[in-house]
Amino acid sequence: MDKYERVIEMAKRRGFLWQSFEIYGATAGFWDFGPLGAILKRRIENLWREFYVINEGFYEVDGPTIGIEDVFTASGHVRGFVDLVVECKKCGEMFRADHLTEKHNGGCPECGGVLGDPYAFNLMFKTAIGPDSKRIGYLRPETAQNIFTAFGRLVRFYRNKLPFGVAQIGKVYRNEISPRQGVIRLREFTQAEAEIFVHPWEKRHPRFGSVADTVVRLYPKEKQDGINITVGEAVEKGIIAHQFLGYHIALAQSFLTDVGIPLEKLRFRQHRVDERAHYAVDCWDAETLTDRFEWIELVGIADRTDYDLKSHSEHANADMRVFVSYDRPKTVEQLVIKPDMGVLGPKFKDMAAKVADALKALSIDQLRGEEIAVKIDGKIVRIDPKWIEYERVTEEVQGEYVVPHIIEPSYGIDRIVYALLEHSFEEECVEDDDARIVLRIPPNIAPIQVAVFPLLSKDGLVECAKRVESLLRQNKLLVDYDESGTIGRRYRRHDEIGTPLAVTIDHQTLDDDTVTIRDRDSMEQVRVRTDEVVEIVCGLLSGDVSFEGAGTRI
Amino acid sequence: MDKYERVIEMAKRRGFLWQSFEIYGATAGFWDFGPLGAILKRRIENLWREFYVINEGFYEVDGPTIGIEDVFTASGHVRGFVDLVVECKKCGEMFRADHLTEKHNGGCPECGGVLGDPYAFNLMFKTAIGPDSKRIGYLRPETAQNIFTAFGRLVRFYRNKLPFGVAQIGKVYRNEISPRQGVIRLREFTQAEAEIFVHPWEKRHPRFGSVADTVVRLYPKEKQDGINITVGEAVEKGIIAHQFLGYHIALAQSFLTDVGIPLEKLRFRQHRVDERAHYAVDCWDAETLTDRFEWIELVGIADRTDYDLKSHSEHANADMRVFVSYDRPKTVEQLVIKPDMGVLGPKFKDMAAKVADALKALSIDQLRGEEIAVKIDGKIVRIDPKWIEYERVTEEVQGEYVVPHIIEPSYGIDRIVYALLEHSFEEECVEDDDARIVLRIPPNIAPIQVAVFPLLSKDGLVECAKRVESLLRQNKLLVDYDESGTIGRRYRRHDEIGTPLAVTIDHQTLDDDTVTIRDRDSMEQVRVRTDEVVEIVCGLLSGDVSFEGAGTRI
Repeated sequence: MDKYERVIEMAKRRGFLWQSFEIYGATAGFWDFGPLGAILKRRIENLWREFYVINEGFYEVDGPTIGIEDVFTASGHVRGFVDLVVECKKCGEMFRADHLTEKHNGGCPECGGVLGDPYAFNLMFKTAIGPDSKRIGYLRPETAQNIFTAFGRLVRFYRNKLPFGVAQIGKVYRNEISPRQGVIRLREFTQAEAEIFVHPWEKRHPRFGSVADTVVRLYPKEKQDGINITVGEAVEKGIIAHQFLGYHIALAQSFLTDVGIPLEKLRFRQHRVDERAHYAVDCWDAETLTDRFEWIELVGIADRTDYDLKSHSEHANADMRVFVSYDRPKTVEQLVIKPDMGVLGPKFKDMAAKVADALKALSIDQLRGEEIAVKIDGKIVRIDPKWIEYERVTEEVQGEYVVPHIIEPSYGIDRIVYALLEHSFEEECVEDDDARIVLRIPPNIAPIQVAVFPLLSKDGLVECAKRVESLLRQNKLLVDYDESGTIGRRYRRHDEIGTPLAVTIDHQTLDDDTVTIRDRDSMEQVRVRTDEVVEIVCGLLSGDVSFEGAGTRI
Repeated sequence: MDKYERVIEMAKRRGFLWQSFEIYGATAGFWDFGPLGAILKRRIENLWREFYVINEGFYEVDGPTIGIEDVFTASGHVRGFVDLVVECKKCGEMFRADHLTEKHNGGCPECGGVLGDPYAFNLMFKTAIGPDSKRIGYLRPETAQNIFTAFGRLVRFYRNKLPFGVAQIGKVYRNEISPRQGVIRLREFTQAEAEIFVHPWEKRHPRFGSVADTVVRLYPKEKQDGINITVGEAVEKGIIAHQFLGYHIALAQSFLTDVGIPLEKLRFRQHRVDERAHYAVDCWDAETLTDRFEWIELVGIADRTDYDLKSHSEHANADMRVFVSYDRPKTVEQLVIKPDMGVLGPKFKDMAAKVADALKALSIDQLRGEEIAVKIDGKIVRIDPKWIEYERVTEEVQGEYVVPHIIEPSYGIDRIVYALLEHSFEEECVEDDDARIVLRIPPNIAPIQVAVFPLLSKDGLVECAKRVESLLRQNKLLVDYDESGTIGRRYRRHDEIGTPLAVTIDHQTLDDDTVTIRDRDSMEQVRVRTDEVVEIVCGLLSGDVSFEGAGTRI
């Protein structure tokens, strides 16, 4: 068994993850988070919220997973979100054309049969809205689009000031052709995305100073062999395009290491031009090194420019601009049109005023050429350029309308869960015992926060243990009470699922009202008073209290 | 404008809710939760988790929203999750047959045209998994099914002990024919469900005593005009079928009133036989009284019996039983078959042992009749009853296998959000000012927890206010800093979105390092020391500190 198999075996057996619909033979690309996996996932999402919603101040929104066709036509997904698929003419198996390698010599990897011609397959799940099947809906391939379509409401919420950020955590879908990588390649998964709307030519970040000295491992597109460099230097040298991208690369590294991804298994790789999404001008992936799949993407950090807002603006005929005031008003010289009413009046009579207004609305470019055409009440009216005069005026301009650019950090939560399980999974030999599996998940992320054991299920220890359990539960901690099997087996059981602390009630508890707290990683124990146990456990979980100073070492 | 319109106008304007894809004309049944709505929704979900995951101890799972066809064939949804649809032959508009009223005289409500014959329309959104379109997928109509299909894994997680509960919060889908009730009738919405697996003939609840005295307003199915009664008495009189349903009716009432649904606008109505879902033997809806839609369902509490597990067990040929030990072993007398090998041996030769085994596997009922047939290696073999002898033996039986019954409280989170907005929305006249809108949301649910205002944006008050903001934010509070407009307008702005507390930094702050805290509901203010502000704000939000005792009244 390789490490992937060992981790997945444990994950299935202990209730972290399993394939969905197993009793019906399962279907590739769909997995359930079981009782422990779902808590782990939720704790990671909540830590993400601390980073992006609380600290960065990006309000979260929550939109539908079904989108209407117009949205994905404008976004480019109807046209561009495709993979090439190849079908075996013999066995009917389907393959991604770009996954076929030379070793198959152009034949079917399953049966060796002749393969058909590749054709484009759209990776969005398609459905119909309502009973008449006329309205097409797609399951969203990214959470972002309903943030873009609601831009007008969001910019008003933020009182028309740039930059501002909007976050969203939710399910997204990708109808993979033939996913063969277990939990790494899902057809339905959870994304946590932030869409940050910035001024198009002001991509300095106000808090860049706080991350400039962070060292990151970069794999730039021309030179994919890695350099260690500070974010500040990388931006200065133009390796990272601007401060906003640099800030979010550093933030992603900070989040991932807090989750428990080891720094030495993390790198940032810039997309080559040929692998960039259709909307991105630059993109860096945070990747982690796994045992079976090598480097896999956990986060993508892209500069989407004004691609999406401009496209929705055109398709929906909606204003997606923000008025940006200059620091000080600018004095601008402009050519102003003066239609000659002495000519237009007699020629157009009642319509003359409308014609004059239409002319004033034209740009200088549109006024060039030998004849000028304007549309009045649906009718084309032709104007001789001679009927127009120009005047040069000086105006004071307070600011201008811009279509914001979008910086997007996009996290794949399911892969982060898997990567965390793999990186924190350890099999170790213990001195006076055989091997133990221990999941070294950071205490603030661990599914079960504290286990409570009576040493024996008699002598009044059970009642005492249940009181401690209840105290901890009242403080909103997720507690597991366990009285079955030897105390050693119970410790092992919780080591394997990453429970950082175990409180044991023994005979001494009945004498002096103290209990032991055992640390998962060091397996050391301290003895503390029962009335302090909640405070100490909370302190150990948050990192405010160190295990060494928590009580009497035993 | 009726109250629904007034609430929705505020909700759209302030960023709670809006229709999805507005720039493309929107599509009925899809709404976005905006920045304030998404937080409100999340806080309600987290309170639900406190009730069901932390306090009841039901572990949460998180499965895909797409399900495969087998699952929904077994669950009965492919066959039974339908509405009758009628199409107007003239204008093509579609209607739910059961929504057509007599006042339309059988004509189209829109154009008066002739209506076609009603036909069944399945309300599940349909899609195809993978490129060959052979595998049908449905968007789940309830979160429950992936809990049922994973029953084997879940019961092992709970170490084969009944009762146990599993919770899930997630999106569900209902392809409504023609939803016309705004945010009340969505095609995609969020459910919070608990599936509680109980012993089929032990539906007493271990903590029933804690709720027996809770008074609830019941509308039983035969007598839909309401009685106030304790849950204990209702179970005793058989109005509520058993303690498990009773316990969860009381728990739902406790949750809904904690969220902020007023008790006097809450009732529990039992489903009539003709409105029960195909899987339920009994169901009570928690309903709330709204201004426009009258009583609407917020929660359904159903006894699904063994319908789902039995059906999946048959369709998937999977074991969905739990071995339940008796309190003490039972002594049982049984008839045991003894095939006469002296006869079977010569007759069936090599097959004799297989025939004997097949006979032993038959029940007593199957052994009655003049001839007995068993299937050996696909062939029917006929046995004369005379070749069999019986023996009466006494056995000690430790327990038996049962298929658990399922009790299911199922919450519609989106409707709870709307109901809370409507019930907490108040327009009131204030003494020295014109009307104010105030959203009286409970402090622990309110989207923004505390606003911070410098009285003026000069004299160093801004810096001081930003320090207070930062202090509060470090304690994971959602803070809004606001310095624009008069202080009165800022208070009003936050009253309207339900912010329970506002901290104001004024000139006195510079003198004695105190700030004011203003209460949204009473509009009273207290003055407290800056270094106490975090503790007092947290105490006020959790209800541990009362406003009266929080500082010096001003």
